[in-house]
Amino acid sequence: MVPRYSRPAMSAIWEAENRYRIWFEIEAHATDALAELGVVPRSAAKALWDWWATNPAIDVAAIDAIEAVTKHDVIAFLTWVAEHVGEEARFMHQGMTSSDVLDTCLAVQLSQASDLLLADLDALLEAIKRRAYEHKLTPTIGRSHGIHAEPVTFGLKLAEAYAEFARCKTRLQAARLDIATCAISGAVGTFANIDPRVEAHVAAKLGLAIEPVSTQVIPRDRHAMFFATLGVIASSIERLAVEVRHLQRTEVLEAEEYFSPGQKGSSAMPHKRNPVLTENLTGLARMVRSAVVPAMENVALWHERDISHSSVERFIGPDATITLDFALGRLTGVIDKLLVYPERMMKNLDRMGGLVHSQRVLLALTQAGVSREDSYKYVQRNAMKVWESDGALSLMELLKADTDVAAALSAQEIEDKFNLDYHFAQVDTIFARVFGE
Amino acid sequence: MVPRYSRPAMSAIWEAENRYRIWFEIEAHATDALAELGVVPRSAAKALWDWWATNPAIDVAAIDAIEAVTKHDVIAFLTWVAEHVGEEARFMHQGMTSSDVLDTCLAVQLSQASDLLLADLDALLEAIKRRAYEHKLTPTIGRSHGIHAEPVTFGLKLAEAYAEFARCKTRLQAARLDIATCAISGAVGTFANIDPRVEAHVAAKLGLAIEPVSTQVIPRDRHAMFFATLGVIASSIERLAVEVRHLQRTEVLEAEEYFSPGQKGSSAMPHKRNPVLTENLTGLARMVRSAVVPAMENVALWHERDISHSSVERFIGPDATITLDFALGRLTGVIDKLLVYPERMMKNLDRMGGLVHSQRVLLALTQAGVSREDSYKYVQRNAMKVWESDGALSLMELLKADTDVAAALSAQEIEDKFNLDYHFAQVDTIFARVFGE
Amino acid sequence: MVPRYSRPAMSAIWEAENRYRIWFEIEAHATDALAELGVVPRSAAKALWDWWATNPAIDVAAIDAIEAVTKHDVIAFLTWVAEHVGEEARFMHQGMTSSDVLDTCLAVQLSQASDLLLADLDALLEAIKRRAYEHKLTPTIGRSHGIHAEPVTFGLKLAEAYAEFARCKTRLQAARLDIATCAISGAVGTFANIDPRVEAHVAAKLGLAIEPVSTQVIPRDRHAMFFATLGVIASSIERLAVEVRHLQRTEVLEAEEYFSPGQKGSSAMPHKRNPVLTENLTGLARMVRSAVVPAMENVALWHERDISHSSVERFIGPDATITLDFALGRLTGVIDKLLVYPERMMKNLDRMGGLVHSQRVLLALTQAGVSREDSYKYVQRNAMKVWESDGALSLMELLKADTDVAAALSAQEIEDKFNLDYHFAQVDTIFARVFGE
Amino acid sequence: MVPRYSRPAMSAIWEAENRYRIWFEIEAHATDALAELGVVPRSAAKALWDWWATNPAIDVAAIDAIEAVTKHDVIAFLTWVAEHVGEEARFMHQGMTSSDVLDTCLAVQLSQASDLLLADLDALLEAIKRRAYEHKLTPTIGRSHGIHAEPVTFGLKLAEAYAEFARCKTRLQAARLDIATCAISGAVGTFANIDPRVEAHVAAKLGLAIEPVSTQVIPRDRHAMFFATLGVIASSIERLAVEVRHLQRTEVLEAEEYFSPGQKGSSAMPHKRNPVLTENLTGLARMVRSAVVPAMENVALWHERDISHSSVERFIGPDATITLDFALGRLTGVIDKLLVYPERMMKNLDRMGGLVHSQRVLLALTQAGVSREDSYKYVQRNAMKVWESDGALSLMELLKADTDVAAALSAQEIEDKFNLDYHFAQVDTIFARVFGE
Repeated sequence: MVPRYSRPAMSAIWEAENRYRIWFEIEAHATDALAELGVVPRSAAKALWDWWATNPAIDVAAIDAIEAVTKHDVIAFLTWVAEHVGEEARFMHQGMTSSDVLDTCLAVQLSQASDLLLADLDALLEAIKRRAYEHKLTPTIGRSHGIHAEPVTFGLKLAEAYAEFARCKTRLQAARLDIATCAISGAVGTFANIDPRVEAHVAAKLGLAIEPVSTQVIPRDRHAMFFATLGVIASSIERLAVEVRHLQRTEVLEAEEYFSPGQKGSSAMPHKRNPVLTENLTGLARMVRSAVVPAMENVALWHERDISHSSVERFIGPDATITLDFALGRLTGVIDKLLVYPERMMKNLDRMGGLVHSQRVLLALTQAGVSREDSYKYVQRNAMKVWESDGALSLMELLKADTDVAAALSAQEIEDKFNLDYHFAQVDTIFARVFGE
Repeated sequence: MVPRYSRPAMSAIWEAENRYRIWFEIEAHATDALAELGVVPRSAAKALWDWWATNPAIDVAAIDAIEAVTKHDVIAFLTWVAEHVGEEARFMHQGMTSSDVLDTCLAVQLSQASDLLLADLDALLEAIKRRAYEHKLTPTIGRSHGIHAEPVTFGLKLAEAYAEFARCKTRLQAARLDIATCAISGAVGTFANIDPRVEAHVAAKLGLAIEPVSTQVIPRDRHAMFFATLGVIASSIERLAVEVRHLQRTEVLEAEEYFSPGQKGSSAMPHKRNPVLTENLTGLARMVRSAVVPAMENVALWHERDISHSSVERFIGPDATITLDFALGRLTGVIDKLLVYPERMMKNLDRMGGLVHSQRVLLALTQAGVSREDSYKYVQRNAMKVWESDGALSLMELLKADTDVAAALSAQEIEDKFNLDYHFAQVDTIFARVFGE
Repeated sequence: MVPRYSRPAMSAIWEAENRYRIWFEIEAHATDALAELGVVPRSAAKALWDWWATNPAIDVAAIDAIEAVTKHDVIAFLTWVAEHVGEEARFMHQGMTSSDVLDTCLAVQLSQASDLLLADLDALLEAIKRRAYEHKLTPTIGRSHGIHAEPVTFGLKLAEAYAEFARCKTRLQAARLDIATCAISGAVGTFANIDPRVEAHVAAKLGLAIEPVSTQVIPRDRHAMFFATLGVIASSIERLAVEVRHLQRTEVLEAEEYFSPGQKGSSAMPHKRNPVLTENLTGLARMVRSAVVPAMENVALWHERDISHSSVERFIGPDATITLDFALGRLTGVIDKLLVYPERMMKNLDRMGGLVHSQRVLLALTQAGVSREDSYKYVQRNAMKVWESDGALSLMELLKADTDVAAALSAQEIEDKFNLDYHFAQVDTIFARVFGE
Repeated sequence: MVPRYSRPAMSAIWEAENRYRIWFEIEAHATDALAELGVVPRSAAKALWDWWATNPAIDVAAIDAIEAVTKHDVIAFLTWVAEHVGEEARFMHQGMTSSDVLDTCLAVQLSQASDLLLADLDALLEAIKRRAYEHKLTPTIGRSHGIHAEPVTFGLKLAEAYAEFARCKTRLQAARLDIATCAISGAVGTFANIDPRVEAHVAAKLGLAIEPVSTQVIPRDRHAMFFATLGVIASSIERLAVEVRHLQRTEVLEAEEYFSPGQKGSSAMPHKRNPVLTENLTGLARMVRSAVVPAMENVALWHERDISHSSVERFIGPDATITLDFALGRLTGVIDKLLVYPERMMKNLDRMGGLVHSQRVLLALTQAGVSREDSYKYVQRNAMKVWESDGALSLMELLKADTDVAAALSAQEIEDKFNLDYHFAQVDTIFARVFGE
């Protein structure tokens, strides 16, 4: 976790205090269920909740000090609770194993993290949608291979991003379901020393599903799927970030990240306005993705479990969620405040002398009975002249003057093909598909 | 693609012939729709289908020869079709761009591949289920950290695998939906030169959904999610493979891969029966996973598309699906014919002199009023003696002879704790959860 | 391996025939050494070499057929050789284990592959160097963050690439040393049944170092380092490829991949010249990199070996070397024939109205006694005007008219700062560092 | 960075204070060189060093506060220094760009980190060597595929690890050279505003090589190679960790991590001694490896630089080095204190009834004139009986009783083959190769 790429709400999920609070709730709810089943006295559960009702501070340092001796985190925590709750605390954790607490806690933390990320996606979708409608019909050149192709609108670019992040949201909802399970099944998952109803009770209280079959741990294919999903979302962030970086290039300059008055772009070159936020997002995407492979390597634990996954999760649990949360927030800000330059978009669109309309002419020739191969040849030879003139020549004029073309199409027919609105006839259709409105 | 890790049905999906067949169907269905819309003559569509009805051989070499000149695969294919269909073929591909064909074809191929993989998962699940019920109550030691923990049954191990692969199936179904879309939207996705109804028609005919908004290409977050899902499935394969490898270790030998009579395990050591299939699966899992990162790196194409994803997909499209198909088939065979040795399982279970029952004694002491810390101490000091004797001493006898323990529990109460059935009381519950029966 | 991304010389290394030829040489050289040591009759070695001198065809299909029965590749090969050599062949492979042959063969193949890759790098370096000197003083704008910064020369860009690939060559030479070892040490590496002098003899004959200590296999950290090095080289390829892609963008167009007359860029847009080779290289780089993680996962084999690495190497051995060989060849062609447009470079350089010289003015102001902060402020306020004018205004004229600036610098002093040669004074120094001339 | 997987010396390298100290030294040494060249007054350099000689505390919070306004870290630092040094400070950073400072600083930090890691490797090698000689002739079974193969010694296992980590050290030394370069070349690497002698001076003072050609930044292929090398080292750590984990399995128990008296292995099963350190190392290896791909993705920066690498390096710079340092230290401790059980090794070695000697018998039969195929058959049929008896039958006795075998070998000849020393005849040779003594 790098502080400058962190936001408080997500970071708090991964702080020791939150973890211990969740541990307590798991233990106390389990004690309730055990009491209900007659395994432990009701007074034990009551003692726990009574103490909790005093809203006790979690003394992380004290728990750490105990762990330094016992070298076991859950025992350290239970010892610390017992110091405060007293004698009745000995009924806690009956028939449970450490992993029951640790894994169910991780499920709660990842669920909390998912909820923040889902809210982040909602905010991002909202920002994209607003800007998409704002620029629904702002013409701009579409590019394949970095080369001018045919006109699109800037709103269409954003509609694409919207659809992509909407898919990401659906995937994250599925991933959240995958990791939101509770396992309280004992040392090797047999419930030998604990009734499955304890698990069911705790699960219900914490908003989790029960884990149908656990070993000592919740199976790690769930977490692998979760982190893989974060990696896909990060890749979609990178895509939109790269788009902005391209648009802000000096020669393109169709859009820019918002530039606050006090900001200095370079210690040496005061005129520079650099797309540093989206470049940063590109790097952050690499980091979120880097969690995917270790999460997958965590799946093949030995037999009923080994603990190799634990250190990995101490890194990627916080890092991937905190970084993705930060990145989604940063991207939302970039889109929300993006400076968009429609005039420059139009200027770029026009600079190739009408080459972007070549496809329409090609079709018109074919429809006028010229063979596909000839049509292609007629258009290409004129297009090449325009290309080599760096936009100084006009494709429309050249085509009118081409005798082969003129034999098939009138000057008016040729002119009709050089018209932007033609390209945007289906924008409403696409927006309706994407935004469902 | 490595031939020895390939099966014919999956390989056929990726052969040139299948690709060209799908291309034809896309073009011909599109021509139908264009004819219906009055854009091209009905005779053009008819000419295509009439030729197709003759079940023409796909001359891959001829198409390759044309591509060697044009350096463009779709143009080469269209040229070849035109050579056979004649004049009417010029109406094909009206308003479409190559990617409309290529990406929709990839969607069909990945859907076909998904269907095979889903069938593979069904076969695997069936094999696991059968063996799980067969060994539902076969006792074996559960191990955490590779160390004996408490008893489980071999059926429970398989139930765990079943639940995991059932989750994998759900994930693959979702991933299949993600990639099964059709885009016929023209050069930059605006439908400038083609009516969206063409896309809808082709999608319906091919069993795909329409792509709500495409650029020139279908967005690659879909494919990233698909390959990430394959990576998760591969990791689950690795997990079960590693379990078998552990069980087959000389010192454990609780199960073995089936060993055919003619097979030689080693050129030097004729007694060896090596778990080579599951070791192989471990390696294949690494390969399937290796497709995940490139697939994610493919997402951030430049603007409306660049072609960097294409070479990646030429590798991972076939490799990841063919390898995973092979691996699932191999794993199914391993499970189906796995030699299971219940006697050896019991022998291993017993070898630690009853240490696996220590947790029950610990609980009994606590419930008899001994503090948690003292209970732990009493059990641990006796357990250590057994451990150091390498199983020669009996924990039950030592506990009976321990005055502190004897003060809290009678000999009979101690003996009651050394009982396997106690551990398996919830096996039915777990099976009901997993198999839903 | 994807045929279209393969070249014959590298592919041949990975064909069955080459593998069997290397196997034979290992076995025959080993038999020589065994004969020298008196372990086997000299006639046995002679029989092998006599047969080999007949230049026998390697009947891959026959060997495969035997393997289908024995399920063991080395035994199948030995059996096939024995069928041809006769009785004496039984002395082959004395005291050896299959891995002695397999791993030493892989070392030979990877060494052969390294030699081709080193030659590829030499060719690439030669092409880069030639173009670097050609454009040593061709001015072009340097860009950070995609934004114009200060002038560089196109030759400097290529000098950077040269230095990078020269480092790659050094790394590959080290990696080649890492994998070029011979192990003939028997079933668990103890030389129990074979004298270490056999290993030394075979190593010397094949141009390999001896493996100081092997288990059954050559340790896989060597191969991990090898594939990691290929991954770094691939990343450097990607960097230069991305540079070309950027330079070919419509708005930049400072360089272009060579465009052959017959080539069609797009089925729909005849004017398009797409940087498809470098886009392809970007994708291929992803694939070569994808071998790195599995190669690292291969290191932790169990005990004296398991065979999980084998399937991985059947993929990545050929795939990573063949793809990298192809990519280096393609990149060499791109650089060799790259169309470079110095006029366009100059036009782009000038388009920002002299903003690229702002740093020099800033320094001059500081040296004239203006505080750093004020200098920055004076330059920035004028630079911003130029920026907002899209290059219509001239920074030089604005600065002359700025009273604060004029108070510190004369008009002539300001003009002196707007001079390209100033920036290129150290080009010779840098070229001398890079090319050592 | 996860505190529990960190050690102070390595962490300190990555703390803000160390970074600012390095920045100061770069700036002050550069000012010295600028003064020497007459570009700035000597008094400026003197003022910097005079202040530095007062050993001023680095006020990280104050610098952060300035950065919050300027949004530029180097400017913030320079401003803070100027507040303390006064007027003369304005001569600092003349002609330099931020990256000159940042990248050279990173080179110093990575060099410092490398030095710690090299010392870690030395300590690890020393521990391995000591234990290797201690157990040079301790017999233990060699295993391939997890199955008993032939005898080795425990010292040989450690010799293998020694050779592997010695290779890792060589690789890290090469990687250190790769990243230890100094670039002070200005905004786009042309030295337009700064003499190359400044770079040379700073490089010499900091123990770095000059960067032959930089853009704005030091090229990232260097860092990719560095992190790839860390990934290989991590993989070697994983290998040795996995070996210990296997040896500590209940059924094997040939070695154990040292178990401190106060340590509790499990909250539920007091008898458990889990290999938690080596399991942890397995996970940490995954994390170090996870830095490799992002480091490679960092190589292809756009043009003369973009800043996408920066966020990645803020994570992986500290994380990979701190984690690897911790892991090497932990592994050294594990090896140093490893509990080794030679009796258990011998017991395991014997448990297969002499099967491990089958290869020797096979050879003896061949040498006695039996065909390879028959020899194999005779040994295998007896070996299978032993195998199926789970070690109850003795291979030696069965072979003596086999008429085909007895026809070729006398009882004494058979007995001679069942002898451990035979296997260890080359241990001295191997140790001499590995330890060079």
